[in-house]
Amino acid sequence: MKLSFVGQWVLTGRRRLNPFSGGRAFSSVVNNQWDGGVSMVQGASRGIGLEFVKQLLEKSNKGHVVATCRNPSKATELHDLKNKFAERLDIHQLDLTIDSTIEETAKSVSDKYGYLNLLVNASGILTVPNVIQPETTLNKVERASLLLAYEVNAVGPILVIKQMWPLLKAGGGTGTERDAAVVASISARVGSIGDNRLGGWHSYRASKSGLNQLTRTVSVEFARKKDPIICILLHPGTVDTDLSRPFQRNVAEGKLFTKEFSVQKLLAIINSVKTSDNGKFFAWDGKEIPW
Amino acid sequence: MKLSFVGQWVLTGRRRLNPFSGGRAFSSVVNNQWDGGVSMVQGASRGIGLEFVKQLLEKSNKGHVVATCRNPSKATELHDLKNKFAERLDIHQLDLTIDSTIEETAKSVSDKYGYLNLLVNASGILTVPNVIQPETTLNKVERASLLLAYEVNAVGPILVIKQMWPLLKAGGGTGTERDAAVVASISARVGSIGDNRLGGWHSYRASKSGLNQLTRTVSVEFARKKDPIICILLHPGTVDTDLSRPFQRNVAEGKLFTKEFSVQKLLAIINSVKTSDNGKFFAWDGKEIPW
Repeated sequence: MKLSFVGQWVLTGRRRLNPFSGGRAFSSVVNNQWDGGVSMVQGASRGIGLEFVKQLLEKSNKGHVVATCRNPSKATELHDLKNKFAERLDIHQLDLTIDSTIEETAKSVSDKYGYLNLLVNASGILTVPNVIQPETTLNKVERASLLLAYEVNAVGPILVIKQMWPLLKAGGGTGTERDAAVVASISARVGSIGDNRLGGWHSYRASKSGLNQLTRTVSVEFARKKDPIICILLHPGTVDTDLSRPFQRNVAEGKLFTKEFSVQKLLAIINSVKTSDNGKFFAWDGKEIPW
Repeated sequence: MKLSFVGQWVLTGRRRLNPFSGGRAFSSVVNNQWDGGVSMVQGASRGIGLEFVKQLLEKSNKGHVVATCRNPSKATELHDLKNKFAERLDIHQLDLTIDSTIEETAKSVSDKYGYLNLLVNASGILTVPNVIQPETTLNKVERASLLLAYEVNAVGPILVIKQMWPLLKAGGGTGTERDAAVVASISARVGSIGDNRLGGWHSYRASKSGLNQLTRTVSVEFARKKDPIICILLHPGTVDTDLSRPFQRNVAEGKLFTKEFSVQKLLAIINSVKTSDNGKFFAWDGKEIPW
């Protein structure tokens, strides 16, 4: 999908007026900026990702969102948002298992905006009938499920961060109310090793532990290079989405969140992160989760 | 390789004399036992795995060892041990990327011994020229390396535990000085997420985090089912092996261990684990490592 060049360039000169606000960390930040910033949500066709897109567009009357999903032609709710928000929303095809689609999205964002201020890795795989099921016992653990969950939940998101890295570095917090660009990967409490008391869900758990380790590893490099990027991992709670639907019976009363509530909480965390939060793992309520 | 039936069955009746020593946890333990127990070392052709085989055979004049590796015909040091220890050592072909080789090994061990008392997952992949390299930056992270490291370092060992589970359950501590069977997966401190301060080595780190989570998940199920199996993860230190050789320059003086020293320490941990250690991650010096 080739998108035409729309939107407006705004010269704020904010960095120039206050050259000491960001120090060396912000040296690569561009001065030409898109008012309200540019956010990308990977895995945006439904569930938490779709809700991120919605709230990012609705929370103010500015800011651009790049929404990606595997199959845009079937993403009817994204197209409804496109009809409503027009040039503020771009929809891109991105399949985490195909490198070229990640690279092409990065090129498109680079060509159109030149930078990114926020990347939300929202995609996740837990259950696909006849393909992958959360395991109830070791006896049901299979190679194919372990590898598929890892590729979609851990490998893909890191390759997206890799391709968006120059754009995030160029963007920093420019055009937003944040001091730095933010990478927020949606993880899960069941990915915590220290918190694992129930067992089961081997493929999903290990893939999220891998995502945690990879995001943490990336955060160390960004900090060392003084790139204006903060990486965090987020546990959204148990949210009423397609992913959690088969397992909602076991959720305690009041602990099954709406998408709206969870994403409000997660966006509040994203919008208030500090450099010292880089590489940390937060629950929806802002509390840190052990690794 | 079809191995003929050798060795002797010993009826100890130890469990019968002291029926309360293990309680329900030991209900499945067989009374017919191989004196000194049966240990399996997966990834035994060189490095830490080979040293485990050696010390398990040398530390007493009894006990049987099943050594597995991808290519037994090239495992000259294993064959030297076979010449020395004869029927106390079996060598099996096992490739962690091929399910049937894991299943066939389980069947052979079942047919010959009927149980296992110790499983050491010692294999590991870090560097293979032109195939996989520890990454120094996110820019060098590639899908193929991430998936290969995960398959060999995390997926394979868990599938081995899956296939050996009935044998470990049948074995418990019978014939050994331990109270339960032990699964020891060789992990690495760089797999710790909380301890990750240097970054880099993305594929290896995340694969070991995955191994940690999978082993922990399995340990929860074994405990819940009261199976007489204790699972632990072990960090051997930086050991002078082919795996560490390209990186030994950066090791502080006195911190590069011989295989002999490291495996002595790890075997001491294995031989003294308690039920309360199930699911924990220990360094060579017995100290717990954060996840």
